[in-house]
Amino acid sequence: MPDHDLDLLFRPRAIAVVGVPSTQEGPPFPFFRGLLEMGFTDETSEAPGRLYPVNPKLSTYQGLPCYPDLRAIPRPVDYVICAIPAAAVPDLLEQCIEKGVRLLHLFTSGFTETGDAARAELERRIIARARAGGVRIIGPNCVGFYRPAARVAWSPGFPREPGPVGVLSQSGGHAAQLVREGGLRGLRFSTVVSYGNASDLNETDLLRYLAHDPDTSLIGCYIEGPRGGREFFPALREAAARKPVVVLKGGLTEAGARTAASHTASLAGTAAVWDAAIRQAGAVRVGDLEELEDLLLARQFLGRLSGRRVGIVGAGGGNVVQAADEAIRAGLEVPPLPAEARAQIARFTPIAGTIIQNPLDTIAENWSEAFGDTLIALGGTGAVDMLIAWLELGWAVWKYTGATEARIAAAVAQLARARTETGLPLAAVFRAPPDPEAWAHYRSLAARTAALRIPLFPSIRRAALALARLAAWPAGGER
Amino acid sequence: MPDHDLDLLFRPRAIAVVGVPSTQEGPPFPFFRGLLEMGFTDETSEAPGRLYPVNPKLSTYQGLPCYPDLRAIPRPVDYVICAIPAAAVPDLLEQCIEKGVRLLHLFTSGFTETGDAARAELERRIIARARAGGVRIIGPNCVGFYRPAARVAWSPGFPREPGPVGVLSQSGGHAAQLVREGGLRGLRFSTVVSYGNASDLNETDLLRYLAHDPDTSLIGCYIEGPRGGREFFPALREAAARKPVVVLKGGLTEAGARTAASHTASLAGTAAVWDAAIRQAGAVRVGDLEELEDLLLARQFLGRLSGRRVGIVGAGGGNVVQAADEAIRAGLEVPPLPAEARAQIARFTPIAGTIIQNPLDTIAENWSEAFGDTLIALGGTGAVDMLIAWLELGWAVWKYTGATEARIAAAVAQLARARTETGLPLAAVFRAPPDPEAWAHYRSLAARTAALRIPLFPSIRRAALALARLAAWPAGGER
Repeated sequence: MPDHDLDLLFRPRAIAVVGVPSTQEGPPFPFFRGLLEMGFTDETSEAPGRLYPVNPKLSTYQGLPCYPDLRAIPRPVDYVICAIPAAAVPDLLEQCIEKGVRLLHLFTSGFTETGDAARAELERRIIARARAGGVRIIGPNCVGFYRPAARVAWSPGFPREPGPVGVLSQSGGHAAQLVREGGLRGLRFSTVVSYGNASDLNETDLLRYLAHDPDTSLIGCYIEGPRGGREFFPALREAAARKPVVVLKGGLTEAGARTAASHTASLAGTAAVWDAAIRQAGAVRVGDLEELEDLLLARQFLGRLSGRRVGIVGAGGGNVVQAADEAIRAGLEVPPLPAEARAQIARFTPIAGTIIQNPLDTIAENWSEAFGDTLIALGGTGAVDMLIAWLELGWAVWKYTGATEARIAAAVAQLARARTETGLPLAAVFRAPPDPEAWAHYRSLAARTAALRIPLFPSIRRAALALARLAAWPAGGER
Repeated sequence: MPDHDLDLLFRPRAIAVVGVPSTQEGPPFPFFRGLLEMGFTDETSEAPGRLYPVNPKLSTYQGLPCYPDLRAIPRPVDYVICAIPAAAVPDLLEQCIEKGVRLLHLFTSGFTETGDAARAELERRIIARARAGGVRIIGPNCVGFYRPAARVAWSPGFPREPGPVGVLSQSGGHAAQLVREGGLRGLRFSTVVSYGNASDLNETDLLRYLAHDPDTSLIGCYIEGPRGGREFFPALREAAARKPVVVLKGGLTEAGARTAASHTASLAGTAAVWDAAIRQAGAVRVGDLEELEDLLLARQFLGRLSGRRVGIVGAGGGNVVQAADEAIRAGLEVPPLPAEARAQIARFTPIAGTIIQNPLDTIAENWSEAFGDTLIALGGTGAVDMLIAWLELGWAVWKYTGATEARIAAAVAQLARARTETGLPLAAVFRAPPDPEAWAHYRSLAARTAALRIPLFPSIRRAALALARLAAWPAGGER
């Protein structure tokens, strides 16, 4: 099957979840709840999906008829999610072949990654039989795929709206964190595939698919060790020539590589080789999962940046000193505030308790016109290529007054006004303190900034690093 | 006044807050609320403090009699917090001298840090007059001091119990964040002084004081540019010879230095000079405020570490690969798991979905005996000098079941058991997702780990960096 036909695999019309729990205790089974939340059983929609739980001990599961095995399901099934033990997989695979299933996702683990020879042999036999029978495999030892346009998710809490970001991740946990937490800040996805041991569909197949997928315009990868071997780097080069590609490589240290071998039976390679190869391919390497999320978000909303000079309006003296240091360390420039702008801002800014420089510390409250005016004056100097607004929404205020949500709305309106009037790319920083109320407000703030395509960062360090990478993006192609 | 007499300044029996707000609208005035929360007006205690609000427009404030000026207060006052405009400070200072006030804290800003010559001259005149009149000054342009044993705090939400950590910070915002957020994780303080423009009491005075203070056994500093000039480095050397000292230097880049000049009128110096000088003094430099908080916390609970070999029990395959990479990058060693321990752990750990290596990914739930047994087997190998337990308390579980608090208590009990049975230093990692419920549980988890003197970190990166610094602490003295 050519790579572009993977698209068909990722548009199932009927899904069987084999191995739903027999007990109703404990938290809901994530695969099932994810599909229900995405609306997979909604038969009133134009593209109704059908969902079949499978467990021989149950007659219904979550209100749907439950079947003892695949053979008992009365209609065709395209996609099977397998959550039963490894030893039972060969029989399930025969049923898949009989029913004409296109794609089998093995959540099941306990194969090659254990280091056990008999288990590795079982995996090999399963893959050989699947190839002969025309069934493609995701995994084993992974959480499958998320594709909002096809209403498929492996877990609850994922955004329902699709977007431009395609992701391949050898770790299901990393992929879920990226989707859930990035989703709160506005990241939106075409297809996210966790591929585990990569015994059939591997990172090279998936990267080629995403590179040609018209719904994907930005690609993120978490790779431990590619199975595609030498084919991976040409595929990376080809993908990066068409679309921006960000790569997080896990297992770059000796201990990390040893761990990756046990995680997904991968050969992790050396840091130097990976670093050079990713750079030569025209992709961008990041150091951890937060950086991957940040850079995808910034790139999704801002594209590339044409310069590296930043204007920062901050909150608190110590914070703006830190902001300057962090911006410089990340590779940005922080030019001094021109005298005219200084004079202009001083007209409406008290001299005491402020710093009328760049970075600028203003006591203008974030929800005031003066805050917007400050950003506009700084952005209007011609001295900067982008703006960062560090919001300080007043933790103390939140605790004793009820006006926070109105203030958040007003602060975001000032950001929007400043962006429109200056025409500059703008990012926001908000550091939520470890307080439940603050995080409730963070979610509201994040939704509002996301709706305006303003990337929101939890620290100046993370904002500065992402923006510096946008400004230093490799040239060429459609990047 | 010799430095050790600063102790007297920081034990006021009566405090006047000059310039409490005339309006009851808005959030409560933090200075006043901080003092009330700490119990400063409690006349039934053995060391009753008396609190006097001053504002000529009010007869009472927050239920206490309010005075038009200092002269009208019927009893002696030791400490004055000044929150009135700069132009009114000289008259207040005369009143302080008349009443024999020991210490005047100028929250008031708008002096030298503005770059305005007349305002700088006003600051100089105030300091000269204070010296002649026997009044010491903190500030201007700072939030003052926090000393729980004397029931003084400049803001609400600070811990009431004292502890071993002394802090001097040129930024009040940084100091407040350190106290509040470090406080949640168990950091406890002797004296925290924010000193702003340092026009009288400066970082050298404060460092010497903390170096000799019997209640302080660990010192943290946030410095922009020392006023004490050449005296600072000898004071740092002396302090670091007596106690562990951690230094965060703000304004190490050109832009940061320019900003620091406007923040606290400081000359910030070059990175190379500071880096070498701090190292030569035997102190430890950190890169940002989070690192300062983390290292003080780790040092307070764990002291120095005798080796750099770490055993990590993790949560999720991608996470433990990342854990290995982060530990190595931070400078720790991650030795392989000896075969005997591997066999022992395999006896009670399923082979599927786990990684029985170091780092170790176990599906043993964190609140189970098997989780404690895993830590004990890893720690009992003799192959590691410390343990890190990365907790994954099940975000999904929290959303649908009510058992989280019991599980947190059980998980922490397993940590305590593992520490007792292995005799090894132990740190915990818990990454709270951006969810209000998760942060409510974070606070509970942090309180429980703090009570056991287990440092808790929000990421493996931060844990690894702090532990690596403990293992690499400069030798000599009482450090």
